[in-house]
Amino acid sequence: MLYAVNHSLLKITTPIILINFKTYLEGTGKKAVELARKAETVYHETKVCVGLAPQCCDIAALASTVSLPIFAQHIDFENAGSFTGYMLPEAVKETGAVGALINHSEHRLKLSDVDTSITRTRELGLISVVCSNNAKVSAAVAALEPDMIAIEPPELIGTGIPVSKAQPEVVSGTVELVRRINKRVTILCGAGITRGEDVAAALRLGTAGVLVASGIVKAKDPYKVIREFADSTKT
Amino acid sequence: MLYAVNHSLLKITTPIILINFKTYLEGTGKKAVELARKAETVYHETKVCVGLAPQCCDIAALASTVSLPIFAQHIDFENAGSFTGYMLPEAVKETGAVGALINHSEHRLKLSDVDTSITRTRELGLISVVCSNNAKVSAAVAALEPDMIAIEPPELIGTGIPVSKAQPEVVSGTVELVRRINKRVTILCGAGITRGEDVAAALRLGTAGVLVASGIVKAKDPYKVIREFADSTKT
Amino acid sequence: MLYAVNHSLLKITTPIILINFKTYLEGTGKKAVELARKAETVYHETKVCVGLAPQCCDIAALASTVSLPIFAQHIDFENAGSFTGYMLPEAVKETGAVGALINHSEHRLKLSDVDTSITRTRELGLISVVCSNNAKVSAAVAALEPDMIAIEPPELIGTGIPVSKAQPEVVSGTVELVRRINKRVTILCGAGITRGEDVAAALRLGTAGVLVASGIVKAKDPYKVIREFADSTKT
Amino acid sequence: MLYAVNHSLLKITTPIILINFKTYLEGTGKKAVELARKAETVYHETKVCVGLAPQCCDIAALASTVSLPIFAQHIDFENAGSFTGYMLPEAVKETGAVGALINHSEHRLKLSDVDTSITRTRELGLISVVCSNNAKVSAAVAALEPDMIAIEPPELIGTGIPVSKAQPEVVSGTVELVRRINKRVTILCGAGITRGEDVAAALRLGTAGVLVASGIVKAKDPYKVIREFADSTKT
Repeated sequence: MLYAVNHSLLKITTPIILINFKTYLEGTGKKAVELARKAETVYHETKVCVGLAPQCCDIAALASTVSLPIFAQHIDFENAGSFTGYMLPEAVKETGAVGALINHSEHRLKLSDVDTSITRTRELGLISVVCSNNAKVSAAVAALEPDMIAIEPPELIGTGIPVSKAQPEVVSGTVELVRRINKRVTILCGAGITRGEDVAAALRLGTAGVLVASGIVKAKDPYKVIREFADSTKT
Repeated sequence: MLYAVNHSLLKITTPIILINFKTYLEGTGKKAVELARKAETVYHETKVCVGLAPQCCDIAALASTVSLPIFAQHIDFENAGSFTGYMLPEAVKETGAVGALINHSEHRLKLSDVDTSITRTRELGLISVVCSNNAKVSAAVAALEPDMIAIEPPELIGTGIPVSKAQPEVVSGTVELVRRINKRVTILCGAGITRGEDVAAALRLGTAGVLVASGIVKAKDPYKVIREFADSTKT
Repeated sequence: MLYAVNHSLLKITTPIILINFKTYLEGTGKKAVELARKAETVYHETKVCVGLAPQCCDIAALASTVSLPIFAQHIDFENAGSFTGYMLPEAVKETGAVGALINHSEHRLKLSDVDTSITRTRELGLISVVCSNNAKVSAAVAALEPDMIAIEPPELIGTGIPVSKAQPEVVSGTVELVRRINKRVTILCGAGITRGEDVAAALRLGTAGVLVASGIVKAKDPYKVIREFADSTKT
Repeated sequence: MLYAVNHSLLKITTPIILINFKTYLEGTGKKAVELARKAETVYHETKVCVGLAPQCCDIAALASTVSLPIFAQHIDFENAGSFTGYMLPEAVKETGAVGALINHSEHRLKLSDVDTSITRTRELGLISVVCSNNAKVSAAVAALEPDMIAIEPPELIGTGIPVSKAQPEVVSGTVELVRRINKRVTILCGAGITRGEDVAAALRLGTAGVLVASGIVKAKDPYKVIREFADSTKT
């Protein structure tokens, strides 16, 4: 039933696999629901936490279908009121999301709005997952004290080099910079994840999970990839 | 049931009362559903077309609850793909909307994006309702050939003067400018509507309906106001 | 001397060749001044009007060096006040510009801001040159009543086809749409201009001049190209 | 003479008084030049460093008139090329500026663009002065390693309370947070400065100077205020 989500049942644990559905047609509407069901199956089989970040239109359907933590892909920081067409965090929460991506590389925010968005999620009990595009920016985000940071090392984005083949410092160096400023933030690896061995490498290098998109959403057999990723968190 | 909307059953007729829920808490989540039900009651009683523009998160719930035409408050013009956090028109449609507001005064778009957004809605069979902020801009929008224009005469927005008390030219002058350029577009009055007599005046001055927000969403008794507006379309 | 420009001496005549310096290094600083001098030489030789649109930083230097009409590449519509880092039309004017490009394809504006920018230039006696990206948008811009429209038919931008080789309707069709709405606006051709014969074709098809950038600014011999363009306006 | 600035002669020393001319008419065009001359007089009398941040249009005039360090109010991070209407850092430098404000409260940038803007200034030998709106954001900016941070404690902006009357922690607390992350960055106080005693207080609380606007630009006697500020740096 819609608007009947019991957030307290949706426990976020790490390692976590967070799936960004983007605006892929393979992750839209009924297909988003199908994909969510496959993710839930993997969760039931492995007990590895799988988070879903569908389009805002689809949050309601996913939240009423599967028992997995759902994240908005974006929120607007404004308060309730005269903000036609914006994404009110309160609405995102009532619809069933437990958190939100903030500052995704495809949806960059002003520095002051990243800060305000984190504050808004904290006040509402939503989990903030802030994306960052290099080591220095990751350190800057750490200072803003979000719940999670998804680091996207530029060495991995531009090149297509997967985490498991990259210089370890590319990931571990950023983790270290972040830790100097913020001991508690949960760090995800947001780039260079194409196979299970990349998930394993990302965890070994100091992150607590991965943020992935096309690798799962556009896979021929998404169930198989999610399962491979989940299994790899245990190696 | 979600994603089972039969758009062909949702006939848009004029005069139309289009309700913008904005990001008012009174129009969010369960309260959005309650408000939609009241609007539907008025529709059943009067057969006057009532459209609803809820937040994107709430489109699914409203579309699966009431048989009224639902409009997104905004769409992003990008095609499906890597556009995290944007509002894909295809998703808006599959979730149950039949159209979208474009370029609302609280969500102004670049000129070229207004054009692309109209094109996108046309290709998908969605109804475009483009807002405009003065007479010249209304004429410009008319040249872009949307389905509907919601005119917002600045004389009515700044001053609090309702349509029924304003100089008739404020509305009829804009209607005339629009008509010189575009004979077919449906014109709504998007400002200065607080009472039933304003609805009647707006229709008398050449528009085919109204776009309203707080006057209904924040009313003590929204049913009563919607009913008053609906009745006034017949005077 | 700086700030001593006598705008009334800078007569804009058509046909006009308007050169957009963009942020090309070949059109920045001292090189912008050199380029401006070459344009002025052509003007003295041919009496064909040549306009210059340098970066804002360079307006002062050009205005104090050459007697050609100078246009800002962009203005911000805000009034004087607390708008750190924006381009005040009053400042642009005092520095020596006689007009401004508005809504260039690399600097698209919100529809309502295009309108406000035109109003601001009109109030200050500056010439507005609004760029538009297709036929419908050109018609929309015409309704906003700027002084000039620089049309950029998408058939010419995407393909590299010059005006002289394109289907004549690509240009004349847009000119016709614009004329239906606005009889007086000066129409420039803002794409597909690489050789003198394109300038001649653009004039033949109903425009009053051209807006060009790399074809002149990045030319090996800019003087030669400007001269060729100027001569072609007389064929 | 234009474009003949010898940047190496423009030594930046602290304490510094940095004057933001905004888009005030009192700081535009010829009036900007007059104001700059008054600032230069104070510099000659006191040897206290006075920086000027005029509108981009006026950089050339100021750089060719006074021997004070000039800062752009904003730069765009893009490289040279097809970016009509943007503020190329190379152009800003050639025109005579030695640095730039970045992320002013009236011109907020995306987080990733703040980072790129700092990198661009560093590569060009320009001084970056990044504005920040609260303690956490100041810490985040510190992690991006600009040359200077202008902190604007919200307790001072909203309330009109000057630094000399505020709780000392409002300024010193932010200084401390910044210093934990970055030992070398120069910290300016960007709010709450209305009288000489505020300048003195700002220095006492750990900053190396002030960023001021209307307090000087809109003063009846700007010379007197600048002189008072300069004298106060020595108390």
